[in-house]
Amino acid sequence: MEKGPELWNISFADPQFTEKYFSQTVDHFNFNSMGNGSFNQRYLITDKYWKKGYGPIFFYTGNEGDIWEFALNSGFITELAAQQGALVIFAEHRYYGTSLPFGNDSFNIPQIGLLTVEQALADYAIMITELKLQLGATDSPVIVFGGSYGGMLSVYMRLKYPNIVAGALAASAPILSTAGLGDSRQFFRDVTADFANVASECRDAVRQAFHQLKDLAEQQDYSRIQSEFALCKPPSSAQDIHQLNGLLRNGFTLMAMLDYPYSTHFMGNMPANPVQVACKTMLGGSNLLANLRDTAGIVYNSTGLLTCFDLYSLYVECADPTGCGLGFNSQAWDYQIELCYESNNVTDMFPPMPFTEREREVYCSKRWAVVPRPGWLKIQFWADALSTASNIIFSNGDLDPWANGGVRKALSSSLVAINISEGAHHLDLRASNEADPVSVIKARKREAELITQWVEMERRRSQKFS
Amino acid sequence: MEKGPELWNISFADPQFTEKYFSQTVDHFNFNSMGNGSFNQRYLITDKYWKKGYGPIFFYTGNEGDIWEFALNSGFITELAAQQGALVIFAEHRYYGTSLPFGNDSFNIPQIGLLTVEQALADYAIMITELKLQLGATDSPVIVFGGSYGGMLSVYMRLKYPNIVAGALAASAPILSTAGLGDSRQFFRDVTADFANVASECRDAVRQAFHQLKDLAEQQDYSRIQSEFALCKPPSSAQDIHQLNGLLRNGFTLMAMLDYPYSTHFMGNMPANPVQVACKTMLGGSNLLANLRDTAGIVYNSTGLLTCFDLYSLYVECADPTGCGLGFNSQAWDYQIELCYESNNVTDMFPPMPFTEREREVYCSKRWAVVPRPGWLKIQFWADALSTASNIIFSNGDLDPWANGGVRKALSSSLVAINISEGAHHLDLRASNEADPVSVIKARKREAELITQWVEMERRRSQKFS
Repeated sequence: MEKGPELWNISFADPQFTEKYFSQTVDHFNFNSMGNGSFNQRYLITDKYWKKGYGPIFFYTGNEGDIWEFALNSGFITELAAQQGALVIFAEHRYYGTSLPFGNDSFNIPQIGLLTVEQALADYAIMITELKLQLGATDSPVIVFGGSYGGMLSVYMRLKYPNIVAGALAASAPILSTAGLGDSRQFFRDVTADFANVASECRDAVRQAFHQLKDLAEQQDYSRIQSEFALCKPPSSAQDIHQLNGLLRNGFTLMAMLDYPYSTHFMGNMPANPVQVACKTMLGGSNLLANLRDTAGIVYNSTGLLTCFDLYSLYVECADPTGCGLGFNSQAWDYQIELCYESNNVTDMFPPMPFTEREREVYCSKRWAVVPRPGWLKIQFWADALSTASNIIFSNGDLDPWANGGVRKALSSSLVAINISEGAHHLDLRASNEADPVSVIKARKREAELITQWVEMERRRSQKFS
Repeated sequence: MEKGPELWNISFADPQFTEKYFSQTVDHFNFNSMGNGSFNQRYLITDKYWKKGYGPIFFYTGNEGDIWEFALNSGFITELAAQQGALVIFAEHRYYGTSLPFGNDSFNIPQIGLLTVEQALADYAIMITELKLQLGATDSPVIVFGGSYGGMLSVYMRLKYPNIVAGALAASAPILSTAGLGDSRQFFRDVTADFANVASECRDAVRQAFHQLKDLAEQQDYSRIQSEFALCKPPSSAQDIHQLNGLLRNGFTLMAMLDYPYSTHFMGNMPANPVQVACKTMLGGSNLLANLRDTAGIVYNSTGLLTCFDLYSLYVECADPTGCGLGFNSQAWDYQIELCYESNNVTDMFPPMPFTEREREVYCSKRWAVVPRPGWLKIQFWADALSTASNIIFSNGDLDPWANGGVRKALSSSLVAINISEGAHHLDLRASNEADPVSVIKARKREAELITQWVEMERRRSQKFS
């Protein structure tokens, strides 16, 4: 059975996805609501590798964005499908991409109210069940895959619908922090650590640059700030400075999350090893503010074509302190997100930017006429009370600031934690690449083995019961 | 450990329930709905037997009715609490009793739309979590109990919220038939079998009496029908005859369900062993129609005070072919129920009364402006795909026509089926009684042992993880 990691170095051809639409129930939980109808939910499907009658179904539980974005950046799933003869489906999350339950009115109040995790999971449960019928594949074991929020959905599918899915690979899924467990300082502390691990001087330079910016802001030296940061318009208020700080911090966040060993085009364009590139930039010239600007430019001006930075178009502040914009549907995500991460300049290198539950409540009330229910995710999706669950892989990369909001230790023989020492945000879901570190090659191999086992178990179980 | 079945013959004192209200979220699944508030959900609680800091919590997942009705007819739970030092809570289901989310408007459209199984389960999950906090009992293992639909809710609590409940005793819970598995003829076939088991002549007499009624109806001899059945008004249409047939069939249904060995006051008044009483009546005088009338009178005229039967006040036809009225909130139940049981006079002794999915759809559209989704319960609550579940007792009585819509065989060492040969509808949940058959005494003993084990397991588990 020892196939060796070189398996993953094969370059696979285009998986040839077909784009289709599924007629989906708008409201699964209220028979008398305005959502008493159906909408077209997009999915991508390929049977290129499928051994029909034998092969399993690999189902990606789409997250906050256009489903093509995830399909094109999760090549591991199709590579694994080629190996295991699987049918592959990437399903788009309601309210993202083209899967809008109420068309252009979807982001109005109250139409936005049917954007919930429960509705999304029910969508997938129904879609899997009906597509299996349509495809003559009712006996095919189904494995769900997802990255980040999509990984959370994969976990929840296995928790709530084990009648439908035999196992879940949840890559970089912060199921604990999102349920309110953990420390609000963790995220930006871990972003900071990524830069400090390249060079502690890098972290110190970033912190010092933010201090210089703070001093200039306190002196209201807005023209100097404009010129140092190449802003299109001079800042003129504390709000503009807050926006600038948010934009800069978000640049570091993205580089830490997307610190892949080769250049990528996912959530924008990134060079290979962006954290190293950033630190080289931060420690380059003698002007720290210019260094900070150029470092942010790695993210915001990857093409080199921008002549100035427009604070409010490059970055959208929203209820997610880790960022809302950049190719995702920021309105829908703004409605969904429930995080209170904050930076404080003590445990991290960023300006103090508090975001309390109270502030979140005020924001959500004003923007969406809703009040968050902080305990709900923990009740509904179990948080760390997972002892009755099974067949879930929690994979996390040590470079990923989301990692420590997830499950890092095995909870049982079938609740497996895979930690990828050189991995950023769900690197394991990406296609194999010559630059892949050994840790991700090993991780994918272990994931493939576990999924093979689950598929086999499910086959035996369904034979026994049929 | 051998305590012997006589334990259950102790007569326990009044459990001293206190009636309280819990501030409950109206809509758990839509933050922007009309239900963006809270309502008062009733529950009954007694700490009379509770060994605080050690004893578990026994939580009854209330079903379609006033919660006092269930608390007063589920004495086994308080007897077991006395034995195991448990806190006991009986929670009232939303839209029943006094737990009306929108007060008097609750049964209007669209307010009725928040009456769903998912909302009810979320109510219980939140109520348990918050009451444990309030009571300083966050470490107490919780066991859920329920009978009939309440038993289904107990199963579903364990499936969907094993983070909150350590085990479930589901008495007479027809989780398979309600999910659309099984045979639409099963229910009335099994009602019929109860009477045939007393005497095949009894079944034959009932069938023959219904034939005589049919002949009279075909001759439109309505005055004869009025006099034979002591109706307050003469029938005048096929609809009236249909209503009479429904009322009569429902009388037999109730006697079969409530065929307890002692007289009861649950869902009306019943003599001890009502099926025997019915057969004695059916085989009494020489006039079969009079016998049929008097047999129905066991149910509808238990006091003997009625001078005539009013067809439309004694029995309410609704979307539940097994009956809607009699002390329950018929409007709410009419909205909830999803059964297509029918009688045919071939596999049962009743008049042919078909009730197809199409007929149900027409009814629900007209009455409630909703369309049932037949596959949903199977997807959402797993139906027979329970292999990943654990710690559930499915108890059923062989006399109960609901039994064969439930789980009758163990599915694993922790998915246990207990069949009570001499038991009617959730007899095991009732207080011990001198007239109890050995089979129910044994069943309760086994249930007590399993629940003790689950509580112990949960204690060990939480100690290990804390």
